[in-house]
Amino acid sequence: MAKIGLVMGSKSDLDIVKETISQLKYFGIEHEVIISSAHRTPDETALWVKSAKTSGINIIICFAGAAAHLAGVVASKCNLPIIAVPISATSLNGLDALLATVQMPGGIPVASMAIGKAGAKNAAIFAAQILAIHDKDLYTKLEQFRDDMKSKIAKDNIALQDELKTI
Amino acid sequence: MAKIGLVMGSKSDLDIVKETISQLKYFGIEHEVIISSAHRTPDETALWVKSAKTSGINIIICFAGAAAHLAGVVASKCNLPIIAVPISATSLNGLDALLATVQMPGGIPVASMAIGKAGAKNAAIFAAQILAIHDKDLYTKLEQFRDDMKSKIAKDNIALQDELKTI
Amino acid sequence: MAKIGLVMGSKSDLDIVKETISQLKYFGIEHEVIISSAHRTPDETALWVKSAKTSGINIIICFAGAAAHLAGVVASKCNLPIIAVPISATSLNGLDALLATVQMPGGIPVASMAIGKAGAKNAAIFAAQILAIHDKDLYTKLEQFRDDMKSKIAKDNIALQDELKTI
Amino acid sequence: MAKIGLVMGSKSDLDIVKETISQLKYFGIEHEVIISSAHRTPDETALWVKSAKTSGINIIICFAGAAAHLAGVVASKCNLPIIAVPISATSLNGLDALLATVQMPGGIPVASMAIGKAGAKNAAIFAAQILAIHDKDLYTKLEQFRDDMKSKIAKDNIALQDELKTI
Amino acid sequence: MAKIGLVMGSKSDLDIVKETISQLKYFGIEHEVIISSAHRTPDETALWVKSAKTSGINIIICFAGAAAHLAGVVASKCNLPIIAVPISATSLNGLDALLATVQMPGGIPVASMAIGKAGAKNAAIFAAQILAIHDKDLYTKLEQFRDDMKSKIAKDNIALQDELKTI
Amino acid sequence: MAKIGLVMGSKSDLDIVKETISQLKYFGIEHEVIISSAHRTPDETALWVKSAKTSGINIIICFAGAAAHLAGVVASKCNLPIIAVPISATSLNGLDALLATVQMPGGIPVASMAIGKAGAKNAAIFAAQILAIHDKDLYTKLEQFRDDMKSKIAKDNIALQDELKTI
Amino acid sequence: MAKIGLVMGSKSDLDIVKETISQLKYFGIEHEVIISSAHRTPDETALWVKSAKTSGINIIICFAGAAAHLAGVVASKCNLPIIAVPISATSLNGLDALLATVQMPGGIPVASMAIGKAGAKNAAIFAAQILAIHDKDLYTKLEQFRDDMKSKIAKDNIALQDELKTI
Amino acid sequence: MAKIGLVMGSKSDLDIVKETISQLKYFGIEHEVIISSAHRTPDETALWVKSAKTSGINIIICFAGAAAHLAGVVASKCNLPIIAVPISATSLNGLDALLATVQMPGGIPVASMAIGKAGAKNAAIFAAQILAIHDKDLYTKLEQFRDDMKSKIAKDNIALQDELKTI
Repeated sequence: MAKIGLVMGSKSDLDIVKETISQLKYFGIEHEVIISSAHRTPDETALWVKSAKTSGINIIICFAGAAAHLAGVVASKCNLPIIAVPISATSLNGLDALLATVQMPGGIPVASMAIGKAGAKNAAIFAAQILAIHDKDLYTKLEQFRDDMKSKIAKDNIALQDELKTI
Repeated sequence: MAKIGLVMGSKSDLDIVKETISQLKYFGIEHEVIISSAHRTPDETALWVKSAKTSGINIIICFAGAAAHLAGVVASKCNLPIIAVPISATSLNGLDALLATVQMPGGIPVASMAIGKAGAKNAAIFAAQILAIHDKDLYTKLEQFRDDMKSKIAKDNIALQDELKTI
Repeated sequence: MAKIGLVMGSKSDLDIVKETISQLKYFGIEHEVIISSAHRTPDETALWVKSAKTSGINIIICFAGAAAHLAGVVASKCNLPIIAVPISATSLNGLDALLATVQMPGGIPVASMAIGKAGAKNAAIFAAQILAIHDKDLYTKLEQFRDDMKSKIAKDNIALQDELKTI
Repeated sequence: MAKIGLVMGSKSDLDIVKETISQLKYFGIEHEVIISSAHRTPDETALWVKSAKTSGINIIICFAGAAAHLAGVVASKCNLPIIAVPISATSLNGLDALLATVQMPGGIPVASMAIGKAGAKNAAIFAAQILAIHDKDLYTKLEQFRDDMKSKIAKDNIALQDELKTI
Repeated sequence: MAKIGLVMGSKSDLDIVKETISQLKYFGIEHEVIISSAHRTPDETALWVKSAKTSGINIIICFAGAAAHLAGVVASKCNLPIIAVPISATSLNGLDALLATVQMPGGIPVASMAIGKAGAKNAAIFAAQILAIHDKDLYTKLEQFRDDMKSKIAKDNIALQDELKTI
Repeated sequence: MAKIGLVMGSKSDLDIVKETISQLKYFGIEHEVIISSAHRTPDETALWVKSAKTSGINIIICFAGAAAHLAGVVASKCNLPIIAVPISATSLNGLDALLATVQMPGGIPVASMAIGKAGAKNAAIFAAQILAIHDKDLYTKLEQFRDDMKSKIAKDNIALQDELKTI
Repeated sequence: MAKIGLVMGSKSDLDIVKETISQLKYFGIEHEVIISSAHRTPDETALWVKSAKTSGINIIICFAGAAAHLAGVVASKCNLPIIAVPISATSLNGLDALLATVQMPGGIPVASMAIGKAGAKNAAIFAAQILAIHDKDLYTKLEQFRDDMKSKIAKDNIALQDELKTI
Repeated sequence: MAKIGLVMGSKSDLDIVKETISQLKYFGIEHEVIISSAHRTPDETALWVKSAKTSGINIIICFAGAAAHLAGVVASKCNLPIIAVPISATSLNGLDALLATVQMPGGIPVASMAIGKAGAKNAAIFAAQILAIHDKDLYTKLEQFRDDMKSKIAKDNIALQDELKTI
């Protein structure tokens, strides 16, 4: 069965990572979550990444802020698809993490999502879309998820029309 | 058999798109390429995207510059994985295309590569990594590709040592 | 009678949209307000836009944050004037929404206002200026609105001179 | 008959302005073009703007680079719709002109287009969309213009498929 | 006797302007303060500026945020030295006001200080430096002001050494 | 008689400095020009600045690129008005020089002009405006300079109307 | 014995400087701390720097915000290694301090750390790494420090797995 | 004897690296130069770094562009001082490389120089300053190097005065 590996560079990223976990649970996708830093635990990170494929992981999602090297470092160690979520962790509001993540040189790809919680949620959905290429049930869940978003907006519209009458 | 759809927003993007095509050919991955604009041909784009899955496409790669809406528009129409390559097409050097591509709100993911040719090359490799989850031969090719990059650097190092003697 | 359509990408934008509504009410301009997302409800957005002209709408004002594609998507579907208000909805403080809104490629215009509440207020005034080309009463109201702003500053000046004496 | 006024801050902007003129001619829209600087000829600019409405002008398009104040200055003098095209005229690539144009405070709107030629072309189309609210023939021309863009992309696609065979 | 004119674009800028007033009072420099907007009261601004020289004003300091046109507009109307203080008044943190202020095209100078309170304080000191070219007493006060800053740092150092012992 | 001191951080800045020299010559303002680096010749810079007032200099204009510290360093050594011209000398297009110049902390003012040639020209005009506070002839020259700019635009307009007929 | 000199431009920087002090104490590295401004006390700064080497200082760490000239000014006065910590002290979030610090022209190096507390901590570690070239005990402490970081992450991982069970 | 290790991420960086080599040769500092990519040859990079200390290397200088992870990756593997030179290698002009280099999180320092050739030259001088802590001859050479820069500026000044007479 498919499994996603989540690697965060610091425990302080957990608030963002929970968005991904929550969305993966929604889709019923198995996952494991570790803290492993590109800079402080490079060897542990390398070991984990190199064994990821044989331990059944299909896709890795990396979370890091500041000079966010984690996704690039992970991508340099294996040929699984690497998805990255830049995190706003410095006074530069995540622009540093975004550029350090997305501007990978040719040869070693990293797929960047948006900075922060929106990106964390989308990382899970994107991983689901990858797995759904060969998983019809998951594809159906993705379609259902979109329908739910549409229904939510339809309900929001009804509430909005009521609210507009009061202003 | 797996197939990748490539959509560029303007014919002027072809120079960048060729990097992707060339890399897909290297991996022997079937692909089709069209020009379809999010803004100038929205209905044609929608039609193509909505039929992409049934016509055998597994992954879509979008190329656009300026206020690059193409990937987001394509992503809004189907649940295939959408990879995007922002292109530097204005005086802002691609920062506009990057932010318009990568900062997708939660719910509809787009996987952004780097701006320009590096991103275009990586889009093909990333698509190969996705397909390689269920394709051992392709995974072997990806491993071979990395080995070739390593060999290239080894050769560069030999040439470098010679060149250093002359300066 | 003239009518303005307001489309916001998410219910969370309502705080900004209220600035526009309030200003349109000041001018007595009829309007309708909906939530419709470029990404989550693309078909509903397209349907609404395509019927906007026949349902009597003359101008559309779009509100969106992050990778703000809404105005571009709406502009791609009809030839009504599209005014856009970029919203600061991510850690990048609205720079992403601004560039995703204003940097439209040649062929499909979007008229961008400032980020946030100032832009929301101005979107209403700009719409009024468009309608006032053929509506003398509305033009008079616009002139009156400017006179009121001038009077407000004159009053502020009097209060200021008093305040300056105390510091 | 409708007329558009074009004001450029410096003769060096003419290369950009020609994109607007060319597009206005395509739509058959009458226009006049002047050079008038917010900074070097403020009184002349004020005089022209204040008489614009009575001399039959319906919409004004402003072109300026650097600390681009022209559109704001023009907007402060009349209640016609003001469209602005920021121009890249300094080492900052037009980011200065864009922010100086689009970030107008609440009360005095300026409708900003994209930086440079794309924005100049779109300024003409947007002005046409405004006039087309009360001009069915012009609206038909706008629809035709879009159809032409679509046909152009259809042709580009055919040429592309041929070109792809050769690479 | 020398006099400085202070013009703020909005009453909300007063908190920043007070830094300038306080510093001018420190130097005993006469000044008048008005609210006058480049956009909302352009004619009143023009009238005030054009009469500034004859009413005894030697230097004008302008305060504005967002697309800060005030200093440029004032500079276009007279040949007094114009000092400007960009104010952070939007989500872009004053970068918009800074670029709209400092990037003046050749011909019409504006002397930009830093964004916000530091700039407001320095505007007063810079004005004093200009006046001190022909005012020995004021020059002595400026020298004294620097000596006071030095003494302040000397005292801070003594306090610091005590504080360091406690950590 | 009044005199302006020009200090450039590197001989490579001369192309920009010539704009200032040329404009000072236009106004007939005496000046001296030296190369003195804040970083490579700090003691020579300090010596020159500290003797500037006694050697008859009234205003200093500083030119520097990259981490442009020259104006701040000069300002720290004397109470003459310091005008600065940031120069685009690195891949960051002068944004580094601008921020390093304009963002001076409270206490030590530097008056920043625009990046590059526009700023260099304006530095001379601004210096003239300062000197003109006590020099009626110079004030008349400044008024004449503005009139010449207006005449130039009037001529440009005539040429423009001819050129427009041909397109 | 080795000694590090710490210079902060303002007492308000102490909160950041404490990160460096705390880390130097961890390594048992002798240090002295002073407040000395590049702009307000340039002569005192110069005197201190010029005597730093003879008073036994081996490395200097500079802390400054806004147009952060301190490190460059210190570097211009001596040939000790100068490490700099840019501080976020204005509305521009430290981008001004970073560019003013790191973009030093060729000839006078400054070694920039990250903006704020992360950079302050790293400045101490980097200084320790320099001293450890000739100090085996200190090198051992550095290795121990890394091991401690690794152990911390190992513990975080255990706590994380527990926390994950609860969500 | 002291030795510096230079690591560039790609052979295309050699043009920049030559600035460092040339300056190291000027000081007579032994060095070795290799190409080793953080992303394409991570294992080779790790092996080289981990053996660097035992093979006599005291300081490592890293050169990389785009999402420049090389210095961070090298820093994560050893406790030698790591100096980094960000390179402008993408459309973002080196801003990506700078932020990816300098914004290192607390715990693992990297000392960033300026983007490009200025930074490359300074990396060599900074390395020399580190080594000169325990090498009086090298310190003397550094002092001589500064004197030469001063003499160069003195000569430039003489040439400048001649050139000024001709304009």
